[in-house]
Amino acid sequence: MTEIRTLTVLGTGVLGSQIAYQAAFHGFAVTAYDIDDQALEKARSRFAHLAGIYQAQQVAGAEGGKAEAALQNLHLTADLGDAVADADLVIEAVPELLELKRDLFRRLSDLAPAKTIFATNSSTLLPSDLKDSTGRPDRFLAIHYANNIWVQNIAEVMGTSETDPTVFDAVVEFAGNSGLEPIEIKKEKAGYVLNSLLVPLLNAAASLLLQGVASPETIDKTWRIATGAPSGPFQIYDVVGLTTAYNIAASSTDVGSLAFAKYLKDNYIDKGKLGISTGEGFYTY
Amino acid sequence: MTEIRTLTVLGTGVLGSQIAYQAAFHGFAVTAYDIDDQALEKARSRFAHLAGIYQAQQVAGAEGGKAEAALQNLHLTADLGDAVADADLVIEAVPELLELKRDLFRRLSDLAPAKTIFATNSSTLLPSDLKDSTGRPDRFLAIHYANNIWVQNIAEVMGTSETDPTVFDAVVEFAGNSGLEPIEIKKEKAGYVLNSLLVPLLNAAASLLLQGVASPETIDKTWRIATGAPSGPFQIYDVVGLTTAYNIAASSTDVGSLAFAKYLKDNYIDKGKLGISTGEGFYTY
Repeated sequence: MTEIRTLTVLGTGVLGSQIAYQAAFHGFAVTAYDIDDQALEKARSRFAHLAGIYQAQQVAGAEGGKAEAALQNLHLTADLGDAVADADLVIEAVPELLELKRDLFRRLSDLAPAKTIFATNSSTLLPSDLKDSTGRPDRFLAIHYANNIWVQNIAEVMGTSETDPTVFDAVVEFAGNSGLEPIEIKKEKAGYVLNSLLVPLLNAAASLLLQGVASPETIDKTWRIATGAPSGPFQIYDVVGLTTAYNIAASSTDVGSLAFAKYLKDNYIDKGKLGISTGEGFYTY
Repeated sequence: MTEIRTLTVLGTGVLGSQIAYQAAFHGFAVTAYDIDDQALEKARSRFAHLAGIYQAQQVAGAEGGKAEAALQNLHLTADLGDAVADADLVIEAVPELLELKRDLFRRLSDLAPAKTIFATNSSTLLPSDLKDSTGRPDRFLAIHYANNIWVQNIAEVMGTSETDPTVFDAVVEFAGNSGLEPIEIKKEKAGYVLNSLLVPLLNAAASLLLQGVASPETIDKTWRIATGAPSGPFQIYDVVGLTTAYNIAASSTDVGSLAFAKYLKDNYIDKGKLGISTGEGFYTY
C-alpha cells in the first residue's frame, strides 16, 4: 500500500504550523511552505513557540530536548515547486476562500509528482467542492485537525466518492503515525463529526441564554455536573474564540443564530472581549 | 422567608424513591406516598437498595452506617390525606400522564394545608400545563431531578410566571440543603436546561449514524477526545436507556427522529438490547 514518509504543509498560520510541527515531532520530514520570507520568518517563531509548549506541557516524547530537536525535521520554503517536489502528502491550510484553494490545487496538479496525495484541512468546505481542481480526485481527500493539536489530538479523515480507498487508508495510517487518533469518516459531511456534534450543543446553549432561561454560569454548571464534562458550552465558546463564533452565527440564515451574532458583537466583540485569547469572554481569565 | 423542613414525595418509582431517599439522607423528615400496600412494599425495598448504593459508592456522609440510618427518616403511607397533612413541600413523581397529574393536584388542593408548596418533577410537561389544577399557582413550580441523583446531583428549579419568588427561593434552598446543586431556571422552558442541551447533541449523533457518516464508536471517541468528556453520545444513550430514547424519537414529527426510532426498534429494542440496564445496547457491558 501507499506509505507516507514526507509531508508538505501549505500555509503556516495557527493550524498549519501545528500540523507541520506535530508531524516533525513524530519524525516525519516536513516541508512548510508560505508565500514569502516574511511569512516564513513568522513561521520559524511559531515553530519555536510550539517546541516550547510541547516541552512545558510535557507532551509524551518531548523530554530531553526532543521538542527542540524536532525543529530539525522542518524545512521552510517560499518556492511552491520546491515544496512539493518529493512530497508523499501535501496538506493545504491556507485561508478558507474557495477560489484561493482551487487555484492552489490547480498549480499543484502541475508541480507535484504523480505519487503525491493532496489533502485539504478546510473546516467549512467539502472536499467535493475542491476535487475537480486537483487533477487527481482519486488521490485527494480532507484531513481535519482541531486547534491545539497536542491536546485535542484527533485528525478527521474524509474522502469523496472518488477517493481511492488505499489513499484513504494511507492517510489514516499517517495520522496515527503522527501521534493523532484518526477519525474515519465514511461519507462526506459538512462539519465532519466533531463540529456536527458541537455546533448543535453550542447553538442550544446560545438559545437558552438569549431566551433568558438561564445564565452562562448556570448552563455550564448543569452540563458539567450532569455529563461529567470538564467544560460547559460557554467555556467552549471562550476557547473557540468569540470572533469565530460570531462569524459562524452571522453567516447563518437562522433567526436565532443572527440574534446571537448581534448579541456577541454588542456585548463582547465590540468591547474587545474575544474569549480566552484576550483574557475575557463569557468568563474572565 | 418560607422554610422547608418536611417533604412528601408522591410516587415511589425509580426517580420518586431517589428523591425521597436523597432528602431523608440529608436529614429531612420525608413521607413517601404510593397507591397501595403492594407499591409500598416495593418502595421499602427500593429504599433499602438505595442505602446500599450510597454506602457502596461512598457518597459523602454515608460512612458509619448513616446510609442505613437515613431509612428512619422515611415514613411510608398509602393515605394521601395523611401523607400531605403536615408537608412543607410536596413533590409529585407519578407517571407522565397529564390528566393523572391534574387529578392528583386537584385532590391535593383540598387535602394539603395552605402552607404547602406543590411541585412537579415532570420531564415532559411544563408547570404551566398543571398550575390551574393546583388551586395555588403562586405556591407551585417544577423541581426536576436527573436519574442516579447521587451522581448527577442537580435539581432544576423552574416556576411559572405566577410562582411567588419567595417560594422559588425556598425550593432552591431546599435543593441545596438536600445535597444537590440547584439549577435556577429564570423562564419556563420545555426540557429545562439539561435536556435542552443534551437532546440536540444526541439527535446530531443519531443523524451521523443514520446517514452512514461514522460508527457509534468513532462518534463517541471523537467527542471524548475533543471535549474531554467521559462519555460520548452513544454511551449516554445506553445510560438513558434505549426505550426512553425510542419513546422520545417516536413521538417526534421530525423525519430524522422517526427514522432513528425505527432503527432503534429494529436493531436494539426488538432484540431486548435496551442499554446498560440489560447489559447490551450500542455497547456490550
